Amino acid sequence: MIRVLVWNEYKHEQESEKIAAVYPEGIHGAIAEFLGKEEDITVRTATLYDENCGITKELLDETDVLIWWSHIAQHLVPDEIAYMIRDAVLEGMGIIFLHSAHHSKPFRYLMGTSCNLTWRESDDSEVLWVIDPAHPITRGIDRYFTLPAEETYGEPFVIPNPDKVLLIANYSSGEVFRSGVLYERGNGKVFYFQPGHESYPTFRVPEVQTIIKNAVRFVAPTYRQVITCPKVRKITDDGPYLN
Amino acid sequence: MIRVLVWNEYKHEQESEKIAAVYPEGIHGAIAEFLGKEEDITVRTATLYDENCGITKELLDETDVLIWWSHIAQHLVPDEIAYMIRDAVLEGMGIIFLHSAHHSKPFRYLMGTSCNLTWRESDDSEVLWVIDPAHPITRGIDRYFTLPAEETYGEPFVIPNPDKVLLIANYSSGEVFRSGVLYERGNGKVFYFQPGHESYPTFRVPEVQTIIKNAVRFVAPTYRQVITCPKVRKITDDGPYLN
Amino acid sequence: MIRVLVWNEYKHEQESEKIAAVYPEGIHGAIAEFLGKEEDITVRTATLYDENCGITKELLDETDVLIWWSHIAQHLVPDEIAYMIRDAVLEGMGIIFLHSAHHSKPFRYLMGTSCNLTWRESDDSEVLWVIDPAHPITRGIDRYFTLPAEETYGEPFVIPNPDKVLLIANYSSGEVFRSGVLYERGNGKVFYFQPGHESYPTFRVPEVQTIIKNAVRFVAPTYRQVITCPKVRKITDDGPYLN
Amino acid sequence: MIRVLVWNEYKHEQESEKIAAVYPEGIHGAIAEFLGKEEDITVRTATLYDENCGITKELLDETDVLIWWSHIAQHLVPDEIAYMIRDAVLEGMGIIFLHSAHHSKPFRYLMGTSCNLTWRESDDSEVLWVIDPAHPITRGIDRYFTLPAEETYGEPFVIPNPDKVLLIANYSSGEVFRSGVLYERGNGKVFYFQPGHESYPTFRVPEVQTIIKNAVRFVAPTYRQVITCPKVRKITDDGPYLN
Repeated sequence: MIRVLVWNEYKHEQESEKIAAVYPEGIHGAIAEFLGKEEDITVRTATLYDENCGITKELLDETDVLIWWSHIAQHLVPDEIAYMIRDAVLEGMGIIFLHSAHHSKPFRYLMGTSCNLTWRESDDSEVLWVIDPAHPITRGIDRYFTLPAEETYGEPFVIPNPDKVLLIANYSSGEVFRSGVLYERGNGKVFYFQPGHESYPTFRVPEVQTIIKNAVRFVAPTYRQVITCPKVRKITDDGPYLN
Repeated sequence: MIRVLVWNEYKHEQESEKIAAVYPEGIHGAIAEFLGKEEDITVRTATLYDENCGITKELLDETDVLIWWSHIAQHLVPDEIAYMIRDAVLEGMGIIFLHSAHHSKPFRYLMGTSCNLTWRESDDSEVLWVIDPAHPITRGIDRYFTLPAEETYGEPFVIPNPDKVLLIANYSSGEVFRSGVLYERGNGKVFYFQPGHESYPTFRVPEVQTIIKNAVRFVAPTYRQVITCPKVRKITDDGPYLN
Repeated sequence: MIRVLVWNEYKHEQESEKIAAVYPEGIHGAIAEFLGKEEDITVRTATLYDENCGITKELLDETDVLIWWSHIAQHLVPDEIAYMIRDAVLEGMGIIFLHSAHHSKPFRYLMGTSCNLTWRESDDSEVLWVIDPAHPITRGIDRYFTLPAEETYGEPFVIPNPDKVLLIANYSSGEVFRSGVLYERGNGKVFYFQPGHESYPTFRVPEVQTIIKNAVRFVAPTYRQVITCPKVRKITDDGPYLN
Repeated sequence: MIRVLVWNEYKHEQESEKIAAVYPEGIHGAIAEFLGKEEDITVRTATLYDENCGITKELLDETDVLIWWSHIAQHLVPDEIAYMIRDAVLEGMGIIFLHSAHHSKPFRYLMGTSCNLTWRESDDSEVLWVIDPAHPITRGIDRYFTLPAEETYGEPFVIPNPDKVLLIANYSSGEVFRSGVLYERGNGKVFYFQPGHESYPTFRVPEVQTIIKNAVRFVAPTYRQVITCPKVRKITDDGPYLN
C-alpha cells in the first residue's frame, strides 16, 4: 500500500462561498476521494488549520507520498516544517506539488530558486500536451487533454532545468507553460503539476485524476534512507568503510 | 571572424514559383544576406545542387558554424556527407538546424533518435516564448514574439532530453512545440530552431534573425580537436600519457 | 516475464584458448546462466555467427531487453541490423551495453557520438562506486565493490551528457570512468555498464550479476509503440487528431 | 572588468599556527593574489569577521562573481546573508564554491539538497581528470593533473544531477568524487570545485589557479535581472504584456 498524505492550505474554501461551492469538502477532500478508491493507496489529509500544520516527523516517516496544495498562506507554514518535508524527500519520500504550490516553501527550498512565473486569472482554456508518452505518469493520457478554464501560468518559470518535462500547456490567450516537470532530489522524487486553481473543478477532471494517481505510484519510494556526511575509513583498512 | 556555411536544399525555390516568390535568392541567400552584414561573421553558401552537396572535409575544417535547411530531399544527402558533418561537430564545429532539418540525416545521426513530430500546414500563427532569458541565444528578444503564419509542429518531438530548452512555441490551433533546443555532442554545440517554413517569409522576421545571429556566436567553437580512442600509458610510467 | 536476448560477438572465446578457458560457454552463456535462474526472466541468446547475426525484426518485437557484448568485430554487424536495433529501442525495447560494446554500432548510433575513450590492458584493479544509492539498478550494492582485475577505461568518454550517472570507477593506476550511465532514447531505456573484459571472469562477480539483473528489470519496457511523424488535424476539427 | 569578491571564513588561519603557515595571508589572500594579476579581473575580499560577514546588497550588486570558502563556521553565516547571496545568483551573479563550502548555506540553499558526502583526512593524493576538454573551465588543463595531498571527498555526494560534470577525481585510497560540477540557477551560473583543504597549499597549484581563473570568466554574467512573478495582460490586449 502506498501511504499518501494530502495537504491543503484550506483557506479559500473556508473564506469564500464561491470556492466552497466548487470544493465543499476542500481541495484535499476532493483529491482524497478519488485516490481513496484505488486499491493500492491509503490516504490521510492535513491542513494549515491542524496543529503544527498537521505535520510531524513521525507522520512523514509513515508517508510514502505527500501531495501539497497551497496558495495565499505559503508564509504561514513555518520554516521548520518546510525543512522537515525537504529532508523527508531527500530520504526518499515522494512529493507532488499542485498548481500554486509552485511558491510553497517546501517546493522553493527543494528547487533552490524563486519558482517565479507569470500568471493571470482570465478563464483561459488550457490544452496539456504529453511530451513523453512512454512515461508512467502520462500513461492512459492521449496526446493532449483540455481544461475548459484554468488560471494561466506563463514562462519564464524560474526552476532548475527539469530532469524531465512530461507535459507542456498551451493556453487560449497564447501562453505556454511547462505544466508537468519531474526532479530527483536526494533519494526522493518530486513532481510539479500545474493544474488546480481553486475556482475551477479541475480536480474532478478524469485526466487530472489519472495523472495524479500515476504520479503517486511513480514517486512512491522503493528505497528510503538518510544519507549523512560520515568520516570514512580507507577501503583497504580493516573493518567497515563507514565508522 | 566566425566562418559560417549556410547549406540549403534549394529545391522548393527552384521547383515552385510560389516559393521562389518568397525567397528569390533561395533560403540560403536570405540567411546569408542578414548574416553577411555582421562585422564578426563571414558567410559562404552551399546547396544540394553543388558537387558532393558542396561539402568537403577541407571546407568543414574551415567552417566554424554550419547552418542547415533541408526538407523534401533529406535522403539525397549521402550518408558519408552526413557522417562527415557529424564528425566535424564532435570535433567542435557548431551547427544550427532550421525547421524541417529536424529530419535531416546530420541531425538524426547526432541525436540518435527518429526526430519525428506531428505537423500540419494550416497557416497557424505561432507565439515563441523565451524560457531562458539569460541565455546568449535569446538576448535581445522580449518575453515572446509572434510569427503571423508558420507550419505547425507538435509534440511528441522524439529527441533526447535537451541540454537546454530555450524557446517553446504556442500555435493558434492549440499545439505546443519545443522550438529552440540546445545540445552538446562531443566538443560541438547543436542548436535546433523550429521556424522557417519555405512558404512564409520567416527568415525576414527581425527576431528570427536575431536568434540565428546569437546562435551563430554561441555555437561557434573556442576549441576544436578530434578526440580519439587511444591506448594510454599508466600515469605513473615515464613518458607521455598518450602514446 | 521479462524476455531477454543476450547477444555476444563470441569471437574471442572461439579463437583464443585463454579466453575460452575463462568463458567455456561463451560470455553470452555466462550471462544467460545467471539470468536464467531468475523467476521473472526468460533468456535467449544470439551471436555474430548466427544467420543475420541472429537478429530479426520478429525477434526484437518479442524481446523486452537486449544485452549486447561486442569487441573486435563491431564492423561485421551490418548497418541494417544496427538500425533495426536502434528503432526497437526508440519503440520501447530496453538495451544494456556491456564493456567494449561502447564502440558497437547500436550504441554509437543511439548516442550520436564517437563513444571514444582511453584504455589499457594492465590488470588494474577497479573499484566501482555507487553514485545514486536510491536507484533500482544499484539496489543491493554497498557503497562500492571491487574487481581484482579489469581492462582500464578512462575519460574523456565521448558520450552525450548522461541522463544519470549511477556508477563511477576508480582504477588502481589512477584513471576514473563513468562506469554505469543511463539514457532514455525515444520510448526506450539504455544502460551502459563498463565491466566485462573477455580475459577476466567479471561476469561471475556477484555484484556485476546483481547490477545486470537490476538493469534488466529497470530498462524493461512498460510501454512500447512506434512514434511516427503524422500530419495531424486541428484539435478543434471533428474526428481524430491523428489521421 | 570582472569584479570578483573572494569570501573566506578565515577561522583556521587565525586559530591554528599550522594553517597560518600554509596561508599566512589567509585563503582569501592567496586567491586574491593570483586573480589580481589578471588584467580583466578586479578583486575584493571579505571574511566572517567583517561586519555582517562583509556582505551587503550593494556589494553583491557590484559583484560579478563571488568565490566562497567556508568550513567550520558555516552556521555563523546568518540565513539572511545566505538568502541574499542566493537571490543575487538567481539575478545573474556568478558563484564559485570551493572545497568544504559544499556545506555552506548559500550552496545548500541553491542546491536544495543536503550536499552531504563522505570524507577523510589521510593525505591521499588526488588525480583530477578532465571529463569535458572542450569546456572553457578546463581550457589549458591536460587530461589530468595531480595534487600530492588533499582531503579525500567521496560519493555519494548528495547534489542535484549536475548540468555538467567537468572533473572527476581519483584518490589514492580508492575513492572517486565529482570534483568540478556546474549548475545554472535562475540567471546565474554556479561552479563547485572540490580542491582546497586548509592544511595543504592547494591554491598555489598552477592547474587549480587556472581552473579558478577560467571559472571566474565562465560564470561572470552577461545578463543580470530579477525575474519576478508578475500578473500579466493578455498578449492580444493593448499595452505592455507586463503591467
